[in-house]
Amino acid sequence: MNIALILSYDGTNYNGWQVQKNGPSIQESMETAVFRLLGQKAHVSGVGRTDSGVHARRYVASFRANCTIPMARLPYALNSFLPDDIAVSGAAAVPESFDARFDCTKKEYAYYIYPSALRDPFHARYAYRYHYPLDLAKMQQGAQRFVGRQDFAAVRSQGTPVKSTVRTVFWCEVEPVGELIRIRVCGDGFLYNMVRAIAGTLAYVGGGKLTPDDVTAILRSGDREQAGPTLPANGLFMNRLWYEHTPALDPFQLGS
Amino acid sequence: MNIALILSYDGTNYNGWQVQKNGPSIQESMETAVFRLLGQKAHVSGVGRTDSGVHARRYVASFRANCTIPMARLPYALNSFLPDDIAVSGAAAVPESFDARFDCTKKEYAYYIYPSALRDPFHARYAYRYHYPLDLAKMQQGAQRFVGRQDFAAVRSQGTPVKSTVRTVFWCEVEPVGELIRIRVCGDGFLYNMVRAIAGTLAYVGGGKLTPDDVTAILRSGDREQAGPTLPANGLFMNRLWYEHTPALDPFQLGS
Repeated sequence: MNIALILSYDGTNYNGWQVQKNGPSIQESMETAVFRLLGQKAHVSGVGRTDSGVHARRYVASFRANCTIPMARLPYALNSFLPDDIAVSGAAAVPESFDARFDCTKKEYAYYIYPSALRDPFHARYAYRYHYPLDLAKMQQGAQRFVGRQDFAAVRSQGTPVKSTVRTVFWCEVEPVGELIRIRVCGDGFLYNMVRAIAGTLAYVGGGKLTPDDVTAILRSGDREQAGPTLPANGLFMNRLWYEHTPALDPFQLGS
Repeated sequence: MNIALILSYDGTNYNGWQVQKNGPSIQESMETAVFRLLGQKAHVSGVGRTDSGVHARRYVASFRANCTIPMARLPYALNSFLPDDIAVSGAAAVPESFDARFDCTKKEYAYYIYPSALRDPFHARYAYRYHYPLDLAKMQQGAQRFVGRQDFAAVRSQGTPVKSTVRTVFWCEVEPVGELIRIRVCGDGFLYNMVRAIAGTLAYVGGGKLTPDDVTAILRSGDREQAGPTLPANGLFMNRLWYEHTPALDPFQLGS
């Protein structure tokens, strides 16, 4: 059977989702847990390859195996073989054709900035500290320039070659959350490091180094050098997911 | 000069405040930072010996050294020699007689419980997960039984010998904070593991294993066996501090 898992993880101690030769990965932890629980070597494939240090508030992965454990019990059973920084919160039988990556119709990342001259040890793992004051209204104006179907070549890093650098961003919202500023970007797909470069560009807009109009010009230029920096991985979370053609995942409210 | 520092730390990776032979301590990190910054071996003494894994939202320590760095700059200077999980947020010149421990007139600890059958990787470091439903109102009733000048022998672990097990608890409050339950205990002093045993007793009250009246009876008995368990260190925070006779610390609002 084909089983989808809903999980979350603190990515601090991992070299990202994908199995790596030179360090621990979430995928490896998941495949080990499945093997220890079911005695079967399964390939656990995920909604995306989060980078080293990136977190997931919600993440969907799937694997094929024989499993007689009821789906309602499977999260507890798997968690007993997982470290504290990875947790499975849901499991569902999905159609044989289900693919965690290609069946995801929309996904939202969140990037957290802690605007403070001084450090806070409790934000250190989960937010990027920005030394200088940030103008929230300016950031909100700049964020709107990322919305729409556009070429995002100016806000990506070179990675795996892609056919096109055009993507659709459905929304890009900047809002205060306690002491932090949260940037949420929802799209149909993301280029390598795209959200971290959007966050870096919005930090420059908030700090006055760029204007909202500059954002539009930078996107048109397609020139990575003109945009803001790629902010560090620790502030980035896979936040919400939509699988609009997979009713089996509806009960998990991944978009809430 | 005598210098007081306000700091905070994520205690996960430390064997507590006090210098240990067999592992890293916050005190050692502080003394190393002072030495690297000022070139002077100073003894940094703290408000209390937090145990291995316990966190501090606020903590006060002090040391004697020659220091020409302005107090407003000292936190930044020290932070550059400290790891990400320890941060100095304030510094003040205090009278020669100042002692971080004995001049603290009141301190408040917070204990966080995450009531959930399922794990959450983002709470794992900072809250104790309790599998069973908890009755908040019962916990609030039980908490009131800890308030007052009483013998707390029933809710302490054997540690360093003390002259008396009588302490004054000024308040003991239980309240929801997001998905978590927070227990705040403020007192003039605490016995070894006292807050963790109070939290364990209140978890038993919330889960129905004990009643609020049992709490009163347990305190009267002085019998550690009758109270609830000592909950793990990861849920415990040194939260607020009061130095009512040290005006130099007033600007830092340690009690807010």
